[in-house]
Amino acid sequence: MSIENWFEYPVRAHPSHTDYSGVVWHGNYLTWMEEARVEHLRSLGIDYAELVASGSELPVVELSLRYHRPIRMGMRAVVKTRIAQMAGVRINWDYRIQSVDGEELYLTGRVTLVAVDREKGKILRQLPSLMKNALLPIV
Amino acid sequence: MSIENWFEYPVRAHPSHTDYSGVVWHGNYLTWMEEARVEHLRSLGIDYAELVASGSELPVVELSLRYHRPIRMGMRAVVKTRIAQMAGVRINWDYRIQSVDGEELYLTGRVTLVAVDREKGKILRQLPSLMKNALLPIV
Amino acid sequence: MSIENWFEYPVRAHPSHTDYSGVVWHGNYLTWMEEARVEHLRSLGIDYAELVASGSELPVVELSLRYHRPIRMGMRAVVKTRIAQMAGVRINWDYRIQSVDGEELYLTGRVTLVAVDREKGKILRQLPSLMKNALLPIV
Amino acid sequence: MSIENWFEYPVRAHPSHTDYSGVVWHGNYLTWMEEARVEHLRSLGIDYAELVASGSELPVVELSLRYHRPIRMGMRAVVKTRIAQMAGVRINWDYRIQSVDGEELYLTGRVTLVAVDREKGKILRQLPSLMKNALLPIV
Repeated sequence: MSIENWFEYPVRAHPSHTDYSGVVWHGNYLTWMEEARVEHLRSLGIDYAELVASGSELPVVELSLRYHRPIRMGMRAVVKTRIAQMAGVRINWDYRIQSVDGEELYLTGRVTLVAVDREKGKILRQLPSLMKNALLPIV
Repeated sequence: MSIENWFEYPVRAHPSHTDYSGVVWHGNYLTWMEEARVEHLRSLGIDYAELVASGSELPVVELSLRYHRPIRMGMRAVVKTRIAQMAGVRINWDYRIQSVDGEELYLTGRVTLVAVDREKGKILRQLPSLMKNALLPIV
Repeated sequence: MSIENWFEYPVRAHPSHTDYSGVVWHGNYLTWMEEARVEHLRSLGIDYAELVASGSELPVVELSLRYHRPIRMGMRAVVKTRIAQMAGVRINWDYRIQSVDGEELYLTGRVTLVAVDREKGKILRQLPSLMKNALLPIV
Repeated sequence: MSIENWFEYPVRAHPSHTDYSGVVWHGNYLTWMEEARVEHLRSLGIDYAELVASGSELPVVELSLRYHRPIRMGMRAVVKTRIAQMAGVRINWDYRIQSVDGEELYLTGRVTLVAVDREKGKILRQLPSLMKNALLPIV
């Protein structure tokens, strides 16, 4: 899989992201990762707010993260996302958060989403057509 | 208005609440203040989740805060809330966050809520009866 | 004071910013407001992380906000900041959060910061020279 | 390993914890999990703020979570933590978040911490004695 598959979302560590040790608090990365995912979907023609309005959503059902190096207040970074795998209505996303020059690796992770019918609260049998049309060509 | 009117909600400053300077980040007090308000309402017989399910909600429309002293990681504090005033569907809450022994004052504030019809997205003409019955005796 | 004094910081409402009602949770605006302030300072030549490293900081000592209209998930907005007033080491910032086209007003607010010596934990007698040189020409 | 090893930390889903879908936003569980861990350490005689003041800290270096069922606004839950394994300065914690009656399982997870020298920013060769004395008897 080539580098072109990675979507890049730039971020900056601001005071609210840090904890007492002056680095980004470990849970705050999930905010950035979700933002990157939503913007990645947008770049593929899927507006997440519209998807929700149309009755579906994509909750996170699994995630695993490794924290390689901390990001200090004031530092910039790039959140890279890639759809690693789709199996039915399950979508695995890979993540890398690294320095702008690509030299330093801060975090690697995988997040699994599943498509759900909002009203029934149940997993869908297949992806909403809005998503299928947008995602199938790229994986 | 006497001391009995204050509802007390105990909190503790954990790592996620802090920022780079080792004290609670200024925006995180709003989480505690909302929790205290919801529990205060519960103590008066109003379950906020039920209120929402019944079609109303109480968004914040105004707030003002003064930060007197910082709360450091590990410290405990008490969030004190009191309904200061009700005017129609507008409710003013006073806040004091202080040390457990009452000696130190960390924050004072006021938050204004207004009762809204969730479906119409409009301000209600009068408080939902669930609220009126619970709140009127105390103010 | 003319429109040129406003610094603009674009934001987008993502899922993590919302609460149960589908709009931005009232406390999350403070994250955006701080980010806008830090980037505004950067645009004036003040790197906040450097300021902290040099021994000073600018904690929030007072804030007041009015929430005019909610921002729904997926919507974009612009956080506008302006230094309204400086009195010694006290700096008042005005805020307006509005739609990208400027037609809708979501929030207005004022935040007061004060310059503090980090080691002593005391208010400075005068602004650090780094700040004075950068800010005095504009106010 | 018996049930006695689990430390229990009660929580309640408040508005700030939820997202647009009315359930706890997936990243907010990490706040609760950290609070439970800090209180678990306290119950073993380790005050995390003191540990930090003495020059060590325990950053998260790895985590993996499975979200089994959502927690809706207003619901209570219990965060259960247990030290699953210690290998040198690496500590694995197991998590279960479940309903108060134990009938429903919301989340399972594992978090890996490592003891770090704050000044050097390096992994310690051995646990600080404060921790060793407190933790070794229980694992």
